[in-house]
Amino acid sequence: MFPGLYDDRVTSDLLPQIGAEQPERGDAARNRRLLLDAAALLVAERGVDAVTMDAVACRAGVGKGTVFRRFGNRAGLMLALLDHSERELQQAFMFGPPPLGPGADPVDRLTAYGHARLALVEVQGDVMRAAENTPESRFSAPARAVSLTHIARLLHEAGVDGDHQLLAMSLTATLDATLVLHETRDLGIPVARIEQAWTELVRLITR
Amino acid sequence: MFPGLYDDRVTSDLLPQIGAEQPERGDAARNRRLLLDAAALLVAERGVDAVTMDAVACRAGVGKGTVFRRFGNRAGLMLALLDHSERELQQAFMFGPPPLGPGADPVDRLTAYGHARLALVEVQGDVMRAAENTPESRFSAPARAVSLTHIARLLHEAGVDGDHQLLAMSLTATLDATLVLHETRDLGIPVARIEQAWTELVRLITR
Repeated sequence: MFPGLYDDRVTSDLLPQIGAEQPERGDAARNRRLLLDAAALLVAERGVDAVTMDAVACRAGVGKGTVFRRFGNRAGLMLALLDHSERELQQAFMFGPPPLGPGADPVDRLTAYGHARLALVEVQGDVMRAAENTPESRFSAPARAVSLTHIARLLHEAGVDGDHQLLAMSLTATLDATLVLHETRDLGIPVARIEQAWTELVRLITR
Repeated sequence: MFPGLYDDRVTSDLLPQIGAEQPERGDAARNRRLLLDAAALLVAERGVDAVTMDAVACRAGVGKGTVFRRFGNRAGLMLALLDHSERELQQAFMFGPPPLGPGADPVDRLTAYGHARLALVEVQGDVMRAAENTPESRFSAPARAVSLTHIARLLHEAGVDGDHQLLAMSLTATLDATLVLHETRDLGIPVARIEQAWTELVRLITR
């Protein structure tokens, strides 16, 4: 689904590999990261509609042609942005500081995982929802598999009795952007309340 | 979303009303039920692809024109079929025998609700998934609101501490046809294992 994007040195042995792409050269990887950081900032500051190829080029201080050569079109940029954010979340829960990263109690790590994902939905929910509603991509993103494994492991560590794989899928469904945006936008439920409900759900399951 | 379908006498004061349609005459309602029962049997016996306007007419012993006048086209028939099944499930959990219906322990009723919905996904999952992946219909079906209210009430009756509305949404997400079909078809997980995981999830949350 994201060909050519799973070649980052740091996580190459942790993330599923897609195809047999050649590793990018270091300057190309840095260049991509620069553009995606600019795009992520634009989404956070001005919403997803503000992310045009022009705006990203301007923000990153490069020519528009560079953005087009890298991502092809706006849809390609959006997919790359989504992948970039997922990988940053993965970095945070695998190697970052507690409570999201290693070292904290598994219940606290599960709680922090949900809050981190909700924060991501808050700024990039539209991009995430578009990906979820493409049937062939909803469950196939490699990032999803890494998150599911992470949640299942934490359930195991927390001593939860049951089918950790399916329980992880149920918990993940709770955090889907499509559902969360329905809750916040259609029903007007504040994100803080959804965070609280996640905390309660984790507590109920792990007590 | 399902104009003209929420006029059944039995549930008219329980289900949300759509628009201000005139109630169907008794014979028209019986006629519709006859056609939808035929369609439901076809799905259960031969799969969703077997449900053509012709096959439904043949099975119900009516002319093809009757099916077209009633449902317009195959998509209309599918939506009506989905609505029909949802209403039968509602009848069962609101008025049917325990453990799905009233009279049983709320934990047993919650468990039975999930199993009944999984059984529905098993035979009509494709139709349900198609509806879920139409963004404007995924959360707007009146049947969804009734199910959410039912689950939230059972959580309350079971003495679960927390945000019952959001917890009901999380539990419902676990039973979405799109997720369940991914689990059974893409991952090859047997339905019996998904049923067991639902039983465990309910037990974890309500203990």
